[in-house]
Amino acid sequence: MPELALIEAIRAVLPDPPQRLLRGPGDDAAVVAARPLAVSSIDTVAEGVHFELSTHSAADVGHKALATALSDLAAMGAEPGEALLAFVLPGDFSEESALELARGAAELAAQTGIAVAGGDVVRGRALVVTVAVTGWADGEEELCGRDGARPGELVGVTGELGGAAAGLALLDGRASAMSNRALREDQHEELLRRHRRPEPLLEAGRRLAAFGASAMIDLSDGLASDASHVAAASGLLLRIDLDRVPVAPGTRAVATALGAEPAVFAATGGDDYELLVCSPPDRVDALEQAAEDAGTRLTWLGEVGRGTGLELVAADGEPAHGLGGYEHR
Amino acid sequence: MPELALIEAIRAVLPDPPQRLLRGPGDDAAVVAARPLAVSSIDTVAEGVHFELSTHSAADVGHKALATALSDLAAMGAEPGEALLAFVLPGDFSEESALELARGAAELAAQTGIAVAGGDVVRGRALVVTVAVTGWADGEEELCGRDGARPGELVGVTGELGGAAAGLALLDGRASAMSNRALREDQHEELLRRHRRPEPLLEAGRRLAAFGASAMIDLSDGLASDASHVAAASGLLLRIDLDRVPVAPGTRAVATALGAEPAVFAATGGDDYELLVCSPPDRVDALEQAAEDAGTRLTWLGEVGRGTGLELVAADGEPAHGLGGYEHR
Repeated sequence: MPELALIEAIRAVLPDPPQRLLRGPGDDAAVVAARPLAVSSIDTVAEGVHFELSTHSAADVGHKALATALSDLAAMGAEPGEALLAFVLPGDFSEESALELARGAAELAAQTGIAVAGGDVVRGRALVVTVAVTGWADGEEELCGRDGARPGELVGVTGELGGAAAGLALLDGRASAMSNRALREDQHEELLRRHRRPEPLLEAGRRLAAFGASAMIDLSDGLASDASHVAAASGLLLRIDLDRVPVAPGTRAVATALGAEPAVFAATGGDDYELLVCSPPDRVDALEQAAEDAGTRLTWLGEVGRGTGLELVAADGEPAHGLGGYEHR
Repeated sequence: MPELALIEAIRAVLPDPPQRLLRGPGDDAAVVAARPLAVSSIDTVAEGVHFELSTHSAADVGHKALATALSDLAAMGAEPGEALLAFVLPGDFSEESALELARGAAELAAQTGIAVAGGDVVRGRALVVTVAVTGWADGEEELCGRDGARPGELVGVTGELGGAAAGLALLDGRASAMSNRALREDQHEELLRRHRRPEPLLEAGRRLAAFGASAMIDLSDGLASDASHVAAASGLLLRIDLDRVPVAPGTRAVATALGAEPAVFAATGGDDYELLVCSPPDRVDALEQAAEDAGTRLTWLGEVGRGTGLELVAADGEPAHGLGGYEHR
């Protein structure tokens, strides 16, 4: 299959470029009318690490690669702009699969209003998809980094956690021995979807940043790991109450089948792509409303204090044990 | 090896971020003070396709990945801005090799004034490096696409061609049977360097675009292939005289050892990353001066005419044969 013909075919399944894209795919580089601040990030998903083609469709992979990159823009509060897609396709990957991969990304691009501005397609030994995204803002006050937390602030999280990790355990067979009765069919499907098709919370991220979140991060590695990053960047201590972690429906059953404490499982499982936010006390109501307006909800599960690092506290007020048993990537 | 520790170590070998980088590596995304036009491109180099670790050092790979992406900015006439680096490292790739890879990219970044704004590091089955670059311009008149050629214009190329393909033939053993006497030691070294360490012609690209080039492309797939892209994008015919193709020193000997016509070899070999430019007749002197000021020289080897596609003409005025025998990637 000639690479150029494949690139043309891929281009045909991408959404039409918007007006701000002065030059799109097909030239040496894309040209975009910029806004004052460019916000950019790159993310790679690799076969055998982030997905298996036995459990993920090519479209799932395309979706997931773009979603994980967009989630970084969400965590900054940036407006989505453009994406560049680079595919490494194994020799036995069909043209049809390559187009399905592109379609998975294209559908999410259309949903989120991001323009696919260019890409690269090469052959290689395993499927790898790398996505670089650029978002935009008009001023720094619209954006939110990891380093802005202050002592006395509340720590919250959007949505529910652990669903993607539970989905992965169902997909890779670790939780396959669990009783079917323990999990409703719709919950089972939803857990798989959480792992295969994460949703970047762009609208929530923008609103939370605009309405006063002091620090934000997307939960890619898991609450415990990512909260540590905010603590380190802000030079403070984050204390999180495990009993307040919102556990995604069906996740309790999967965690129990794996012999794990559900809240610990939810706090350490990766790939949820929910947002962790820090809120000054006087912004709590505004941020709750912002989350609601974006179709999600905030759960407050801890606070920022002086010190360093992360403290996960269980019901008895003691530091939690049994963490770190899940591999982060 | 924990990925986070490796990322920290990689960050330490990167050049310090410039002032325009408001947030650099270490947050969810980088934030840059933008100029009016953002010019962006993504390029991937994969083990077994673009390089072999038996013939390329990790630093060569890091250099090459960034150079190929920057070459796209050169072909647009953009000023280099930021790069995002994504590494897929095989399990047996040492931390030392990963740092050497990063250093190869970091040295070229420092030389070209591009800031490494962020990255991603994952484990995978083969070494893959993807680089997304952003360049900047203040107006469209500073930039030059593939589609601006007009009938009656001259077609020129910077530098000399075929050197990278000759270097590859020496590296992969196809030309190893050739007599050592046919190639001087310094020429041999230079041919290997051309393949391993391509130089993005950023300064030449900026000057050529600014001084009136009507269309431009970087020669990644080879003159024949890339000239066809300009012809297609401009909707015209490019006629190129094979006898005027500037053949890199030492390339004649390698081509002859491979049983190839040197000019055909030079016109079809990839990875030279020289620039092909189209020039209105009244800009020829200015573009020659622009190339010279950037430390290179232009060779005029054809013209733009009405029609479509590419015509490669040999000395006898007949269309050339024997093309297409080299694999393009």
